[in-house]
Amino acid sequence: MLTRIDHIGIACFDLDTTVEFYRATYGFEVFHTEVNEEQGVREAMLKINETSDGGASYLQLLEPIREDSAVAKWLARHGEGVHHIAFGTADVDGDAAAVREKGVRVLYDEPRRGSMGSRITFLHPKDCHGVLTELVTAAKPH
Amino acid sequence: MLTRIDHIGIACFDLDTTVEFYRATYGFEVFHTEVNEEQGVREAMLKINETSDGGASYLQLLEPIREDSAVAKWLARHGEGVHHIAFGTADVDGDAAAVREKGVRVLYDEPRRGSMGSRITFLHPKDCHGVLTELVTAAKPH
Repeated sequence: MLTRIDHIGIACFDLDTTVEFYRATYGFEVFHTEVNEEQGVREAMLKINETSDGGASYLQLLEPIREDSAVAKWLARHGEGVHHIAFGTADVDGDAAAVREKGVRVLYDEPRRGSMGSRITFLHPKDCHGVLTELVTAAKPH
Repeated sequence: MLTRIDHIGIACFDLDTTVEFYRATYGFEVFHTEVNEEQGVREAMLKINETSDGGASYLQLLEPIREDSAVAKWLARHGEGVHHIAFGTADVDGDAAAVREKGVRVLYDEPRRGSMGSRITFLHPKDCHGVLTELVTAAKPH
């Protein structure tokens, strides 16, 4: 069961500049940074609020580190903007199986590693009214 | 001060079909519906979680009711997808003034009526790394 908006994934050309925009404009601070080699991005998580399921909602700022990464290709087509949205669940495996059964294409056979040790999968945007949708289970209870 | 992700605004061609997609796929239920004549949309709010500032996070599904509405024009260019993101604040007037002072274009001189009696304004996406950004103060404490 999806119990929170976990994050909004925003693709940008330059992570440092974009982090500084969110800090200077709104006062949002960086909670966590990492490089995800498999996804081909470096990223900054800005924690915005905690959520009623014991988790939190973040902005996830994403800069590609390889020209062949999905985010790099997306940026080349669209320019900067909202790349995906992510719903938090305690059971990404179960929820991914359930939506697959309903005919929504799930992009990974098995969940992969996401931010902060989470396990994630993505749903095909063409099956989700144009929204690239991520399901995420945090590494441990917050 | 912005204290929550208030909602993610998603533009769609047909509200009923899209509401049904979110219900059938994830179990999200409609919390509120309304027509906003000024914005030229009809909309459904799906409440996803409550937030640590006493508010909540929603998906806001938007269908244009006029071809000359901003959302209709956006849909014609982009197709369905994430139209904007919204941050909640107790003081939309103060926060709008503060970001304007930092050189970010605020689209309204004064906040206008948003969902559920809220007061809203928008920041120019070109000043926000491609993200159409809304600031919203709820009608009353949740």
